[in-house]
Amino acid sequence: MSQHFTIDARDGSARAGVLRTAHGDVRTPAFVPLASTATVKSLQADEVAALGYEMVLGNSFHLFIQPGHEQVERMGGLHEFMGWRGAIITDSGGFQVFSMGHGSVAEEVKRRAPERREASHGGVVAIDEEGVRFRSYLDGGERFMGPETSMEIQAALGSDVALAFDECTPFHVSRDYTARSTERTHRWLDRCIAWHEQGAPEWQLFFGIVQGGVYEDLRRESAERVTRAAIDGVAIGGSLGQDKDEMRAVVDLTTPLLPDEMPRHLLGVGDVDDLVHGVGAGIDMFDCATPTRLARHGTALVADPEARWRLDLVKAVHADSREPIAEGCPCPACTRHTRGYIHYLVRARELTAVRLLTMHNLTFMALLMRRLRAAVEAGEYAKTAKRLLEAGPYDT
Amino acid sequence: MSQHFTIDARDGSARAGVLRTAHGDVRTPAFVPLASTATVKSLQADEVAALGYEMVLGNSFHLFIQPGHEQVERMGGLHEFMGWRGAIITDSGGFQVFSMGHGSVAEEVKRRAPERREASHGGVVAIDEEGVRFRSYLDGGERFMGPETSMEIQAALGSDVALAFDECTPFHVSRDYTARSTERTHRWLDRCIAWHEQGAPEWQLFFGIVQGGVYEDLRRESAERVTRAAIDGVAIGGSLGQDKDEMRAVVDLTTPLLPDEMPRHLLGVGDVDDLVHGVGAGIDMFDCATPTRLARHGTALVADPEARWRLDLVKAVHADSREPIAEGCPCPACTRHTRGYIHYLVRARELTAVRLLTMHNLTFMALLMRRLRAAVEAGEYAKTAKRLLEAGPYDT
Repeated sequence: MSQHFTIDARDGSARAGVLRTAHGDVRTPAFVPLASTATVKSLQADEVAALGYEMVLGNSFHLFIQPGHEQVERMGGLHEFMGWRGAIITDSGGFQVFSMGHGSVAEEVKRRAPERREASHGGVVAIDEEGVRFRSYLDGGERFMGPETSMEIQAALGSDVALAFDECTPFHVSRDYTARSTERTHRWLDRCIAWHEQGAPEWQLFFGIVQGGVYEDLRRESAERVTRAAIDGVAIGGSLGQDKDEMRAVVDLTTPLLPDEMPRHLLGVGDVDDLVHGVGAGIDMFDCATPTRLARHGTALVADPEARWRLDLVKAVHADSREPIAEGCPCPACTRHTRGYIHYLVRARELTAVRLLTMHNLTFMALLMRRLRAAVEAGEYAKTAKRLLEAGPYDT
Repeated sequence: MSQHFTIDARDGSARAGVLRTAHGDVRTPAFVPLASTATVKSLQADEVAALGYEMVLGNSFHLFIQPGHEQVERMGGLHEFMGWRGAIITDSGGFQVFSMGHGSVAEEVKRRAPERREASHGGVVAIDEEGVRFRSYLDGGERFMGPETSMEIQAALGSDVALAFDECTPFHVSRDYTARSTERTHRWLDRCIAWHEQGAPEWQLFFGIVQGGVYEDLRRESAERVTRAAIDGVAIGGSLGQDKDEMRAVVDLTTPLLPDEMPRHLLGVGDVDDLVHGVGAGIDMFDCATPTRLARHGTALVADPEARWRLDLVKAVHADSREPIAEGCPCPACTRHTRGYIHYLVRARELTAVRLLTMHNLTFMALLMRRLRAAVEAGEYAKTAKRLLEAGPYDT
């Protein structure tokens, strides 16, 4: 189990390591940009590599719907299909199929077991022990996804790391619902592992997912159950609470429960301060839509804790600014263009705005993670992390 | 007049030359990509330069509406604003303001003089000797553009080449309407020149526009009138007919009427075969939305005369193709990606599709023009042009 992951340095709970995959090494701690639909939106694959990223995240749900995992397999697998030479981790699709249900019918979820829910909103037709039946957002056709489906999709995609198919509960469900959901996710874990052992490409690593919502005993139970299984790494998933404090509490209580030698992935977390906290708590990998989604909505990541590290370029105050988004940032948005120009491009809904801000935000994240890694190696994590939060990740 | 343009080689009517501007030399024959809204859509300015382009075209109408020419001026002029180090030619806005009227109320145009047209469709409120009153597509506010407005906008933008403000008639208007419109365009030319001599930056060149529709005598009259004026170059504008044959007939009859030493720009023409014909007829510069617009609609330029040099990647036939769009093409779409992947990206409406196809189409155009220029220099234009149309512009 430890061949594929080595820890090179430690500072308190923080670790700097290397995840070895069939498509190259991934230095950790690492932020993994989303290529959910086989593209980091607006960028070419080689540009993502040039920014220093060694792994991206593909999404089983989206690629199942379009173009279909068999199609990706016919095209030589996801690496070949999207022209990405580095490592790929694939999300199981669980989050997306359950979001369709939980997102829009939250009130129902609280009162009824999902087994008895009628199909209505959000595309979910039925959820039972087998898996989830839902309607495709593309053509309305009915589809099914269960643990075996997810593993089959991830095998066809040929990712370097497959994730277990789990139910991702929203933050407001009851302890009782969370307990039952966590137990089912554990049964699904066994089915995932059974399929993976028979059907996955021999290079594909498999990560289990610890559930349990915000409940300490459930997290503890889930961590024990999941890390006992035949897994190559572990992700922290499920509900992480309704705010940053709850999320951090879940991370702080869960990481000590995980085997030290296993790579640890925190699902869907990507705010600057949360990364700094997560690395400090011993997380090795993160993925999140935020940096690239913010870019598509005109927001740049900057060293401004009071503004939650966000600069909203839609605002009129930037119209006359001939300053770059960030002094010292090596990205094309900052070395070649002004805030005023990018403000204009955002307002005019120009594609170039999305591209420039995506380059900027992913540059920010790549440099931040590089600095955090270096800080662990240098044994000065706390001091460096504090400085990075204030001053940003650029050489000055 | 001849200091800013030199002709280095000739082959029949075709010429290879250099237009010297305040922002660098433009080797001709040249295709000028559209940066109508201060961006070549989906590309960074330095990427356009890296493709080999030395000039782009900004649009006075669009930049007048958003962000406003005063705003661009406050930001240091259009070059500085968009981060483009090369030359810029600005369209006068005439085509756009008149398109709003002519495009949607074509029937009216045929029967009534524009002076008497009521405001209704397309945003045009009134057209008279002074200029055009219209409603902004952005906020519905009333705006005015006349010859002096256009020159003022172009001066504020600080382009290297300003174009005269003209009425661009659609192909279906009568000879009588065309004659009156051409005469007014000539009167507007004098007003443009008067403004330009007083108000333009000293480096800004000024090109007149020959009108006259498809009528030989009107073209002849207009060519004489326009080229007698104090202009630095001449563009062929107005209606170029309803098909390629009419357009080429207009080009063939007009170019011999133009002073040999003046740079000649053919407005809005950019099909592969039309460029080959135009260069052969003695045109030095072209601009056209087609290569970049096709890219945004999923179409790649390829060496296929029977398909009008177009490959529609929306078509399902490309889904399984692991071939590049074009063998030998050095663009990132072709060196790193397959037709099948790009087909998928186009179908999924991914921004990366627009970017890859824009890179491809502008690479195709840049190489084509480079080859045509080399062919003129080598004195083998006819032979090379024929080969390029069949085999494409790549090294093989």
